[in-house]
Amino acid sequence: MKNVGYYNGKMGLQEEMTVPFLDRAMYFGDGVYDATYSANRKLFEIDWHVERFFNSLKYVQIPFTLTKEELIAELQKCVDAMDSDGVCFVYWECTRGTAPRNHLFPDCKPNLIINITESKITDLRNPCKLITMEDTRFFHCNIKTLNLLPSVLGSQKAYECGAKEVVFHRGNRVTECAHTNVNILKDGTFITPPLDELILPGVTRRHYLEVCKRLGIPYEERPFTLDELFDADEVFITSAGTLGLPAYEIDGKKVGGKAGELLKKLQVAVVDDFEKETGVRPDVI
Amino acid sequence: MKNVGYYNGKMGLQEEMTVPFLDRAMYFGDGVYDATYSANRKLFEIDWHVERFFNSLKYVQIPFTLTKEELIAELQKCVDAMDSDGVCFVYWECTRGTAPRNHLFPDCKPNLIINITESKITDLRNPCKLITMEDTRFFHCNIKTLNLLPSVLGSQKAYECGAKEVVFHRGNRVTECAHTNVNILKDGTFITPPLDELILPGVTRRHYLEVCKRLGIPYEERPFTLDELFDADEVFITSAGTLGLPAYEIDGKKVGGKAGELLKKLQVAVVDDFEKETGVRPDVI
Repeated sequence: MKNVGYYNGKMGLQEEMTVPFLDRAMYFGDGVYDATYSANRKLFEIDWHVERFFNSLKYVQIPFTLTKEELIAELQKCVDAMDSDGVCFVYWECTRGTAPRNHLFPDCKPNLIINITESKITDLRNPCKLITMEDTRFFHCNIKTLNLLPSVLGSQKAYECGAKEVVFHRGNRVTECAHTNVNILKDGTFITPPLDELILPGVTRRHYLEVCKRLGIPYEERPFTLDELFDADEVFITSAGTLGLPAYEIDGKKVGGKAGELLKKLQVAVVDDFEKETGVRPDVI
Repeated sequence: MKNVGYYNGKMGLQEEMTVPFLDRAMYFGDGVYDATYSANRKLFEIDWHVERFFNSLKYVQIPFTLTKEELIAELQKCVDAMDSDGVCFVYWECTRGTAPRNHLFPDCKPNLIINITESKITDLRNPCKLITMEDTRFFHCNIKTLNLLPSVLGSQKAYECGAKEVVFHRGNRVTECAHTNVNILKDGTFITPPLDELILPGVTRRHYLEVCKRLGIPYEERPFTLDELFDADEVFITSAGTLGLPAYEIDGKKVGGKAGELLKKLQVAVVDDFEKETGVRPDVI
């Protein structure tokens, strides 16, 4: 298939499939999701994503019925149903179920939805522009929920400003972007915001920390400010499909570009791991 | 029909209808809604609800294609399709459309969804219990969006504590409940939080203010604290279906019950208006 939609075991083309009118995602956004990429039909860093997904489920008290292994098997089945064995975006979500609209938890089984599309890993050789915006999101950003309207509005605003992403901040404190984590390099140290309710525990963020440990590069998980962002040697964003994309401009001001060698070392290590796990080296560095 | 589901002009039983897999509500909660009640097939305070709905659409930049009159006509068509001419919950939402998952605004038409179910107006003669909880929601609570997961979790928590609703507060400042506004009476004055990004501009809240003006009862739209809540002469919640329900206990502590006569006067005026508009007097006071 050219893309795969999946709803509780039933597969089809996404644009042809339907879901129940009363799925709680339709009126409460009552569900959580996760996403990774596949290449050569191999799921990248799947265990980390599935672990985070199960954490999200736990936080919002959705009684998912599959084991981690069963979920991965369903994802693999969908990836295998794709025509393409190239890079695919592998997205899945679980909603609290299908029931008449009522805020209270319904007495029904959760729904599993999977969504596979051809995609690509972001080219890291073309630094991007960013904009900043006050972070008006909720205090559950550590949970990957379907309540994404502020991220939609932020992303659209960035796009309209010719930027790749929006950097959210609470007052002077930088949190993350609409769909990536934001990190900096300063004086040879990798600095990334700490894990709390203000940011998503990014799997690629974690990967960068792991690479720092492996290569002996100093790292800090701590809050940093807008001033530090603008003053950093490098600013770069990370997500499952964006393995460390530097920014050259934020709000029209020039940033970063002062520690290209260190950033390259980190990027290469992460891309190497992608190749090691999937057998495919993305042409991005 | 015993209930009515509606999706872009197509009607059916809610439990039998389906919607597209790629409706943006399914993965971003990317839409807004509003709701009121009908009795005798007459929509109560519909102009206020439709005006708020259009404000919500504007805030999130959804280019809805119907006029207010056309929307009301569609709602009326659905109410008329109900078997019952008793009290019905009349809910509608507009999502940004159906498109492959991408944060950026899609190039497609929004979807209109309507949902009518038999219901009832809350009996105001049985005061309720409430609990309090830190307000961890986003800073867009003035918009009636589909991003309702924190309200779902708060409502469930209240239910598990044997309470009717959860009172959210940001620090010491009371905001609103998961699906009602919260108001107090103190020394003969009606006090309700001001309209900002922390609360929904409730139509029944507005109705109470209007009644205060009409009856010459002093009123204040201003922030109040948890201390004021516990110390109030009356605490009561309002929504389209809850026309002023007093609380007798919050977090296990006795509250209110000291200005029953004034509260009754306000309740009666609001219920009178309901009867005037729909021809039906709900047996709730």
